[in-house]
Amino acid sequence: MLSKSQIKIIRSLHQKKFRDKEKLFIAEGPKVVSELLCSPFTVRELFSTDVSAISSPDFNVTKISDKELEQMSALSAPNQVLGVFEILQPELKINRLKEKLVLALDDLRDPGNLGTVIRVADWFGINDILCSHNCVDVYNPKVVQSTMGSLARVAVYYCDLESVLQNLSPVYATVLNGKNVYAEKLSDKGVILIGNESHGISAELLSKVTHAQAISIPNFSPKADSLNAAIATSIFCSEFRRRFPLQQKNMNE
Amino acid sequence: MLSKSQIKIIRSLHQKKFRDKEKLFIAEGPKVVSELLCSPFTVRELFSTDVSAISSPDFNVTKISDKELEQMSALSAPNQVLGVFEILQPELKINRLKEKLVLALDDLRDPGNLGTVIRVADWFGINDILCSHNCVDVYNPKVVQSTMGSLARVAVYYCDLESVLQNLSPVYATVLNGKNVYAEKLSDKGVILIGNESHGISAELLSKVTHAQAISIPNFSPKADSLNAAIATSIFCSEFRRRFPLQQKNMNE
Repeated sequence: MLSKSQIKIIRSLHQKKFRDKEKLFIAEGPKVVSELLCSPFTVRELFSTDVSAISSPDFNVTKISDKELEQMSALSAPNQVLGVFEILQPELKINRLKEKLVLALDDLRDPGNLGTVIRVADWFGINDILCSHNCVDVYNPKVVQSTMGSLARVAVYYCDLESVLQNLSPVYATVLNGKNVYAEKLSDKGVILIGNESHGISAELLSKVTHAQAISIPNFSPKADSLNAAIATSIFCSEFRRRFPLQQKNMNE
Repeated sequence: MLSKSQIKIIRSLHQKKFRDKEKLFIAEGPKVVSELLCSPFTVRELFSTDVSAISSPDFNVTKISDKELEQMSALSAPNQVLGVFEILQPELKINRLKEKLVLALDDLRDPGNLGTVIRVADWFGINDILCSHNCVDVYNPKVVQSTMGSLARVAVYYCDLESVLQNLSPVYATVLNGKNVYAEKLSDKGVILIGNESHGISAELLSKVTHAQAISIPNFSPKADSLNAAIATSIFCSEFRRRFPLQQKNMNE
């Protein structure tokens, strides 16, 4: 049985200040936890209501009750397994990013959106995401869950976007009235810059990143005025990969 | 002041059985309500904590307190305005659909996904969505809210997909191991068929719609195994509109 203080510490990891203090975060459910176990993340503790749900001889799994899981979980419907992992803050190596297609997020606030963007990036083989410091914390339990395990394969860097983007090119700033992404010349390397859910990319950032090219998804509606940030990101990623495919794994042609 | 029984009736519309009985649904927030007021929907009642939030001389707005709004609202953060509208069940005219690009949803269950799909369809000028009877109810308050007003411009038909799809062609069945949507010949008319969040398109439906062509979004990840249903829908819609654009409204070329 877990002690009250163990449960309290793990529960405290729902909040950023305690994650920062302990340098730990939680992930839940067999799928997400299994994928993080096969990743650069180091697991600190593994709990399960059913020890067969995580079938690895390499890790100790502590059997817990449904009630204990409920007390530690951040989910409305807890799902068998909860893992405590060490926070990673990957080192940003600009020169390495110059060779790749990367995403940059300016002030993305919704945890579900960040998680979905990480999942989409993974699908399209984009392994690096730059986040402004005011983006939601990637170790927020809602973000971790909505990555569906893709956090295992995508590095997320919190940085001063303004200075980092000075050193990367091209930068594609996704806006509402830019050039048609379907028709515009694109590059196989560079940065796709996505803005905040309500306000888009901050005017201050745009004014500093003078080499940015504004691109848009054509709008075919008389009145629809926006797309969700994660939806827009997925459409831009798709269009870049359509033009510059990497090796694919699922095609049946 | 509203009576307890008025509040109770409106609150009951959070549930499908009462929506079906009263033939009414609720929409909230100035943006969503304003867009439904300029649409085929008929408004029955309009409430606002600030009557200037809905600035139309054509409708009576009842001033209510924050507490009354909270009692009627389905939102965790109620937003000034709540409208009660009459449910529309648009008549399905197959011949009219034959001339257009339409979406079909098989067993889509998540309210946020259906709302997002409606918003995406609107953006791409797709005005008709066929839903299997086991899809989530489009008048569920979470669906209505996540359309961000696009429900005003997209008709949603609940129908027997199996028989309706017999009469439409081509049908593009979106699956995980079909042909590359970027490379496949597509048509400017037809049906994009999307499946359930966990199980995809039902095997039974696929076995009956023998003329369906299986298409997929290429996967560039070693391990990512799925995309969210609304994300996948948006990428397919984007690819069809890239090839067969309608009149656009926002381009700056």
